[in-house]
Amino acid sequence: MTHNLPQLGDDILSWKLMDIEHLEVEKRKGPSRPGPYEVVVAPQWNGLCGSDMHIYLTALLGEEKMKEPFVLGHEASGIVVQVGEEVRGLKVGDRVALEPGEGCGRCGDCKKGAYNHCDSMRFAAADGLDGTLQGLYKLPADLCYKLPEILSLEEGALTEPLAVAVNAIINIANLPHSANVVVFGAGPVGLLTMSVAKALGARRVIAIDVQQQRLDFAKSYVASDVFVASIMEKGESKEVYSQRHAEDIKRSLGITDRGIESIDVVIDCSAAEVCMQTGMWLLRRKGTYVQVGCGPLYVNLPMRIIADRELTVKGCFRYGPGVYPMAIDLVSRGLIDLKPLITHKYDWRDAVSAFKTTKAGTGEDEKMAIKVMSK
Amino acid sequence: MTHNLPQLGDDILSWKLMDIEHLEVEKRKGPSRPGPYEVVVAPQWNGLCGSDMHIYLTALLGEEKMKEPFVLGHEASGIVVQVGEEVRGLKVGDRVALEPGEGCGRCGDCKKGAYNHCDSMRFAAADGLDGTLQGLYKLPADLCYKLPEILSLEEGALTEPLAVAVNAIINIANLPHSANVVVFGAGPVGLLTMSVAKALGARRVIAIDVQQQRLDFAKSYVASDVFVASIMEKGESKEVYSQRHAEDIKRSLGITDRGIESIDVVIDCSAAEVCMQTGMWLLRRKGTYVQVGCGPLYVNLPMRIIADRELTVKGCFRYGPGVYPMAIDLVSRGLIDLKPLITHKYDWRDAVSAFKTTKAGTGEDEKMAIKVMSK
Amino acid sequence: MTHNLPQLGDDILSWKLMDIEHLEVEKRKGPSRPGPYEVVVAPQWNGLCGSDMHIYLTALLGEEKMKEPFVLGHEASGIVVQVGEEVRGLKVGDRVALEPGEGCGRCGDCKKGAYNHCDSMRFAAADGLDGTLQGLYKLPADLCYKLPEILSLEEGALTEPLAVAVNAIINIANLPHSANVVVFGAGPVGLLTMSVAKALGARRVIAIDVQQQRLDFAKSYVASDVFVASIMEKGESKEVYSQRHAEDIKRSLGITDRGIESIDVVIDCSAAEVCMQTGMWLLRRKGTYVQVGCGPLYVNLPMRIIADRELTVKGCFRYGPGVYPMAIDLVSRGLIDLKPLITHKYDWRDAVSAFKTTKAGTGEDEKMAIKVMSK
Amino acid sequence: MTHNLPQLGDDILSWKLMDIEHLEVEKRKGPSRPGPYEVVVAPQWNGLCGSDMHIYLTALLGEEKMKEPFVLGHEASGIVVQVGEEVRGLKVGDRVALEPGEGCGRCGDCKKGAYNHCDSMRFAAADGLDGTLQGLYKLPADLCYKLPEILSLEEGALTEPLAVAVNAIINIANLPHSANVVVFGAGPVGLLTMSVAKALGARRVIAIDVQQQRLDFAKSYVASDVFVASIMEKGESKEVYSQRHAEDIKRSLGITDRGIESIDVVIDCSAAEVCMQTGMWLLRRKGTYVQVGCGPLYVNLPMRIIADRELTVKGCFRYGPGVYPMAIDLVSRGLIDLKPLITHKYDWRDAVSAFKTTKAGTGEDEKMAIKVMSK
Repeated sequence: MTHNLPQLGDDILSWKLMDIEHLEVEKRKGPSRPGPYEVVVAPQWNGLCGSDMHIYLTALLGEEKMKEPFVLGHEASGIVVQVGEEVRGLKVGDRVALEPGEGCGRCGDCKKGAYNHCDSMRFAAADGLDGTLQGLYKLPADLCYKLPEILSLEEGALTEPLAVAVNAIINIANLPHSANVVVFGAGPVGLLTMSVAKALGARRVIAIDVQQQRLDFAKSYVASDVFVASIMEKGESKEVYSQRHAEDIKRSLGITDRGIESIDVVIDCSAAEVCMQTGMWLLRRKGTYVQVGCGPLYVNLPMRIIADRELTVKGCFRYGPGVYPMAIDLVSRGLIDLKPLITHKYDWRDAVSAFKTTKAGTGEDEKMAIKVMSK
Repeated sequence: MTHNLPQLGDDILSWKLMDIEHLEVEKRKGPSRPGPYEVVVAPQWNGLCGSDMHIYLTALLGEEKMKEPFVLGHEASGIVVQVGEEVRGLKVGDRVALEPGEGCGRCGDCKKGAYNHCDSMRFAAADGLDGTLQGLYKLPADLCYKLPEILSLEEGALTEPLAVAVNAIINIANLPHSANVVVFGAGPVGLLTMSVAKALGARRVIAIDVQQQRLDFAKSYVASDVFVASIMEKGESKEVYSQRHAEDIKRSLGITDRGIESIDVVIDCSAAEVCMQTGMWLLRRKGTYVQVGCGPLYVNLPMRIIADRELTVKGCFRYGPGVYPMAIDLVSRGLIDLKPLITHKYDWRDAVSAFKTTKAGTGEDEKMAIKVMSK
Repeated sequence: MTHNLPQLGDDILSWKLMDIEHLEVEKRKGPSRPGPYEVVVAPQWNGLCGSDMHIYLTALLGEEKMKEPFVLGHEASGIVVQVGEEVRGLKVGDRVALEPGEGCGRCGDCKKGAYNHCDSMRFAAADGLDGTLQGLYKLPADLCYKLPEILSLEEGALTEPLAVAVNAIINIANLPHSANVVVFGAGPVGLLTMSVAKALGARRVIAIDVQQQRLDFAKSYVASDVFVASIMEKGESKEVYSQRHAEDIKRSLGITDRGIESIDVVIDCSAAEVCMQTGMWLLRRKGTYVQVGCGPLYVNLPMRIIADRELTVKGCFRYGPGVYPMAIDLVSRGLIDLKPLITHKYDWRDAVSAFKTTKAGTGEDEKMAIKVMSK
Repeated sequence: MTHNLPQLGDDILSWKLMDIEHLEVEKRKGPSRPGPYEVVVAPQWNGLCGSDMHIYLTALLGEEKMKEPFVLGHEASGIVVQVGEEVRGLKVGDRVALEPGEGCGRCGDCKKGAYNHCDSMRFAAADGLDGTLQGLYKLPADLCYKLPEILSLEEGALTEPLAVAVNAIINIANLPHSANVVVFGAGPVGLLTMSVAKALGARRVIAIDVQQQRLDFAKSYVASDVFVASIMEKGESKEVYSQRHAEDIKRSLGITDRGIESIDVVIDCSAAEVCMQTGMWLLRRKGTYVQVGCGPLYVNLPMRIIADRELTVKGCFRYGPGVYPMAIDLVSRGLIDLKPLITHKYDWRDAVSAFKTTKAGTGEDEKMAIKVMSK
């Protein structure tokens, strides 16, 4: 099953980001033997995401220019090619989803289950660490999650962005049962967030975006309602617009300020200031707002509304323990269908095209790109 | 005991706000007989607060000009002069603190214990309803809280602002045990918030304000540490300032980003945008920020910090069930001392001076005004 | 629409419980005019429940013999025949579900949203208060919940027991998303509890009962898995049995102690000691056990298991604010189907037969009785 | 500072439990070099606790007879004699409290911060693993907590039982602010639990025990009230007794069923069935009961009271992340005084006497033994 995969000791190929929009294949030595609790995996599919694109297009790691070339990729599935001696529950040939961040396991954050805040976190393709766009990848066995037979490796690679959505909905929004949820932004993370909300029984899942095409997809996919964000009127400030916009949305969708038709949770996956503002105006008293999309450092927010309505505004950073198994289980049970999201797939040799399609938002096939994957 | 108080049927005096900074005494008919579950109280002391002053100085109710004269006052204690036939636990002569807001008791918000969000809330001196600066005041018996003998009527009148602080700390901030708490703004509500945090076992209570004089008081009162907010440097934006300011505060007070010396809770009672910003920069990962002070509709906030550190930002509106008894109990047990806050007391006939002193922030005695009361 | 219903001022008929298994029709004066916030309803359907049967069969109210005859019935739907002058949102002719308990609205419990603990609660047919098995019934308007057109009055009458289940699952068990839930007892409340768990997205809903027939129904209704409780072996103590029983259940259903196949929540609707014990042995570490069924005062429980596994064991008493609207909404959205539960319906004149069928557990049609209703 | 301590490579002495009440000193090879994140510590003080005594007196590990001799001791402080190369924040000579349980760090429980439930937990002196009653002890650096200068090594050794109390009060009971707390059992863990409750601002800390002498100590130490458990009357069942007993306690201490004088939290550290029962009868509606003491597998509990009052009953097993730092901080801040609890100290050579005194409950000095320590 793994005879055509690279093996321990083989030289392997990797896609290195050299500089802005400049990728090169490098032949390099593969990883050393796995430690007792580690495994070596041959990555099979890599999804491209917004943060990959941000680095690809700017060569910035956080605020700073990357110092030296490194391998991108952190949304990956793969096949196990070697297991450490103490590893239980995984064997050579297993198909797995990879969790790309390894906490130190010893700091206060890791020990209390908040490894996403670990100061020594080693996260694939972030901070210049090599990612998964290479022939072999070594990681702790407990970061590999076996895929059930009914899940494909393509779906497995999407476990990572799905984990972001699962974490936002369950751990951060603490989704109330039967909640009415508004999601701003119908890109990949927004769509995944909607799909998780629906899978967990949200009463209404309302998608708001500026692009009709994305909303058409959202509606056919999982949204119960969609709303095309209206245009700011000439001379209208963002602040006036967002309040008016919220009223338009409420009227149009039969949303009320109280009771069963009020909005319990708003999740922003758009990172746009007016969406954040509009979201807060939409919420019922004591409602919850969650920021998933990563936008500007500062934004103008209606703090008086937060205060008067006793809103809860929460941030969200990656995901923590138990999220991958939940994500895989939801897909396995058929509650979430990842396949419609995978609009474009490229061969490994053609990874550059994958980045180009993601950048363009449309493939050479003129089809809207949602999730682009590179084998 | 109540023979020198106005009685049911008597004409009573009331202080009416006629227009901006214009108060007049009006003689009027007193209240009708109390319903079965109501009582009539003769208000004894009224504290003046920021929202009273706002109305007094602007004649605005919310965004709109007041339509007709009405009686101010909502921080009151009094003596019961008449009780309804079904009232239990209260009798004529009892000294009580008054809770000034009466929910409808039938809507979804009231029934689930969130009467502060009741759409039909009747709140003394808000929305043009007559308040407590008058000779008699009728209200439901369950909004009267008997004062233990060791509490004076002056202290009893401060139960209302103390309830705001108790609610912010317990119900909104959900104060973790042994937390490090930063409070911005050392005015009356800020000082009460600090005193509640300390009474409930906060590890450090850090006061930040622009006035050294207020901080001196805070330190002598309940703060474990104080910090005089530094000045914005020339050409420095609020956003650059607030981040730098947070670093200055951390360094100066030995605050860390993680662990036992990190900041768990920030409460803003200043309503100043730079304080809100600085507060968010100060918090540890997963820390909680609570907005108590009512400031501008929109403020510029570091949303990326909220997201990356997974902060929780919460609003706070008045108080709900169970808060008054908790407030009175904390004072009765000696955990909170309200007396030092009462810097100026005026006779009822001299209520205008009480408003003037509150406006000036200093009495004719040149003493800093914290809480000004009118009998 | 209401012309054939009794009207205010009419004499009405009521079914009075005279003594053990002795019901009589009494003609009596109808209710007086509704107060400003009250309505008068003509009850249409009444469901019979375990507590009705308990009183019917024993004439006991709590521990004591009933003092005088009174009207049974507390699971009712009806049609509004008169509304108080301040009532909004309800009009004559509206079809409503009735919430049968009226808290005082003034005590600490009521005000904090826990009116089910109100010491002055007036609950229909409990404590000797007249219930809904009569021609007209007066109650506060906020205890009447308008039924959407798609719900029948029969379904509306089941809102009451459904509210018990909704409260147990949402407010007491605090059902985690995608949880594995075990419900002991496949009677009406058990079945409703299962249906709520499923409606809110439970991963597995496992029904356990001693009767194969009930489990067949549960499986065809909403349960994902069923298990016929095995027999205690000769000489086996309850305690040995329950531990062994839990192991049998785990093995048979592929339940594990940890991870995605472990049991998150156990709800006991059987009130049988061995079920309670078995339920605690089934739970994963930090799992939640909720007692819904009302059993003996004392039961033998595996406290060392509660301690070592850090279980949470919670009690459950009726329901509180917001539960009825949630219950009605779940049915309206088609997530819960109440109709299959209604196995027997009797005309009002034939109410005695309804009680007999409920007692027998089988109708004259030899069909298993789940929910028996009297018009 | 460490020149008179055993060093890496030295032979060391250890106290081995050979069989029931049979300890022997063994000379053995010391530990091997610490791994990169490990340290070697020379244990200085060992507290003896109930579970040590249980093993000492029965030679049972859980339900089974110990298989071979092993070293007791798990409440220890020590001095660092060697640090691994990657260890930061600890150096040779540091005085530390030792956390005796090492989770695997890779399982679901460990990763979500519940390492006390780790299936591969290696806990000192439990399951036959060697404990801390030996010259040198190797453990992960993150399980060593540096003692502030103001804490003695004796106090440091008590961090372990204090951690049990901190965990029970904060993480399991989720102590409400200003709560009334009842603690059954005034032994070491009960007293520590009381001291934590008081340190965190409990309103009343009520100690209940059968021994007047222990209660005298509790009162002089931290309890606000004490109650000597009364005697069961002749012919009275445990169940009748416990209800009556609860009423006696309420009357005697002015405890009410509702409001500010009601009991919010009961912690049982007695492991006696009648105390558990009495505790549940004492609680207010929605109150919380926590089982700390480890008693019989099955106990008879008033389930109908749990249900009707909607109590929460929770178990408690050791402690998890963040608890040791909190425990040390509370002592360092002077909120908890451990010194009065240390009634007897023995030299290392005299460890057998330490066990004898603990067994007797009284030292040769005729003084009541609370905490007995062996250097």
